[in-house]
Amino acid sequence: MIQTGMSATCTRNTARALHATMICFITTDVAIEAKALQACLETAVAESFNRITVDGDMSTNDTVLLLASGASGANVDDAGEAAFTRALTGVCGSLARQVARDGEGATRLVELRITGGASERQAHRVGDAIACSPLVKTAIHGNDPNWGRILAAAGYSGEPIEPERVRLWFGDRDAVQLLDRGLPTAFDAARASALLAEDPAIVHLDLGLGSAHAVVWTCDFSAEYVRINADYTT
Amino acid sequence: MIQTGMSATCTRNTARALHATMICFITTDVAIEAKALQACLETAVAESFNRITVDGDMSTNDTVLLLASGASGANVDDAGEAAFTRALTGVCGSLARQVARDGEGATRLVELRITGGASERQAHRVGDAIACSPLVKTAIHGNDPNWGRILAAAGYSGEPIEPERVRLWFGDRDAVQLLDRGLPTAFDAARASALLAEDPAIVHLDLGLGSAHAVVWTCDFSAEYVRINADYTT
Repeated sequence: MIQTGMSATCTRNTARALHATMICFITTDVAIEAKALQACLETAVAESFNRITVDGDMSTNDTVLLLASGASGANVDDAGEAAFTRALTGVCGSLARQVARDGEGATRLVELRITGGASERQAHRVGDAIACSPLVKTAIHGNDPNWGRILAAAGYSGEPIEPERVRLWFGDRDAVQLLDRGLPTAFDAARASALLAEDPAIVHLDLGLGSAHAVVWTCDFSAEYVRINADYTT
Repeated sequence: MIQTGMSATCTRNTARALHATMICFITTDVAIEAKALQACLETAVAESFNRITVDGDMSTNDTVLLLASGASGANVDDAGEAAFTRALTGVCGSLARQVARDGEGATRLVELRITGGASERQAHRVGDAIACSPLVKTAIHGNDPNWGRILAAAGYSGEPIEPERVRLWFGDRDAVQLLDRGLPTAFDAARASALLAEDPAIVHLDLGLGSAHAVVWTCDFSAEYVRINADYTT
């Protein structure tokens, strides 16, 4: 993910980020110093465009450009930066979720809420592993409440997961619990399946290791994705 | 990838080893010390089962067990370990390639030969990134000589690639060259496409950074993969 503010500074995140061919232009009419603008954008991108994946592939085009004209005369000073960053994160988050929702062949947005992490980085890495798993994404496409694939992806994320601490829910407000301390509950499979069919499909995994959390967005993985990308000719 | 010798010692590779749900049993009638057997197996697995991927997902089942009965009375001592390891690597390599070739919905084996690496680890990581890219694998499925997707995956592998040093060929004995020092050649697209349709499809990427090399095997990625994994019910 390349970000640039008005100053045309470019940075590339070291994280394996983003993942959908995208060039994003954002404009604002506030007046703000270039260096401060860059900092605001980096914070916003970390919470939005660097939290989505379509297929795990990162394009050389993945870029966010933010231009501030100052035309409104509204000045963003040090005291106003937090509010500006929140608003900017809101815009970036909305755009990022639209990118994931609009993935090739996708039929729904998938929101992965990872809580109970020992660190935000841990929660983010676990979320990325699940979001990039073709087995998880095809299961969601088929409305299959396959908690084993979700747990397996968390397990190979590189983070030291403790299975006996893990809890898993589907749906908003933790509608159905599938795992409690690593063991499957007697959940209603038809209801769990119906929750996966929703847009967005919401999956909440609690690692039971701390209080850090992260959200990662992706989409389901359909046969149409393969057709689009296999038939595309250079 | 869990490996175990006769001694029932288990080790788990720290690398994100790649794979396919698999439990592999190998037996031999040589006589060999358990510790030596474990070392031979770790070497063989590093060059075989840890060089394949079907979809990037690693299963908790991924295990190789090697049992040596000693029934033949043929003793493998220190001097014989290298030859035994070579033979064992040959067996493991053949089995591993069969796993990749037999991936869900796969129509062909894909052999990625990465040369010119600054280190074997670098060559391996670049190969893994390409082998895990759904965009590369769908392009191969569609016989699309899409060198851009291969180069993009190498670029996001986390290794410091220098595009202007990269060369790329398809086919055995470097039949068709697609990139020379980072630039596309005037290659015959129909011939390049036909080479991708072969089984195995052979892709050779030279990084131009050193003399280390690695081979990674995978398979193409078809709509059938999605159907199999979306329709599967827990």
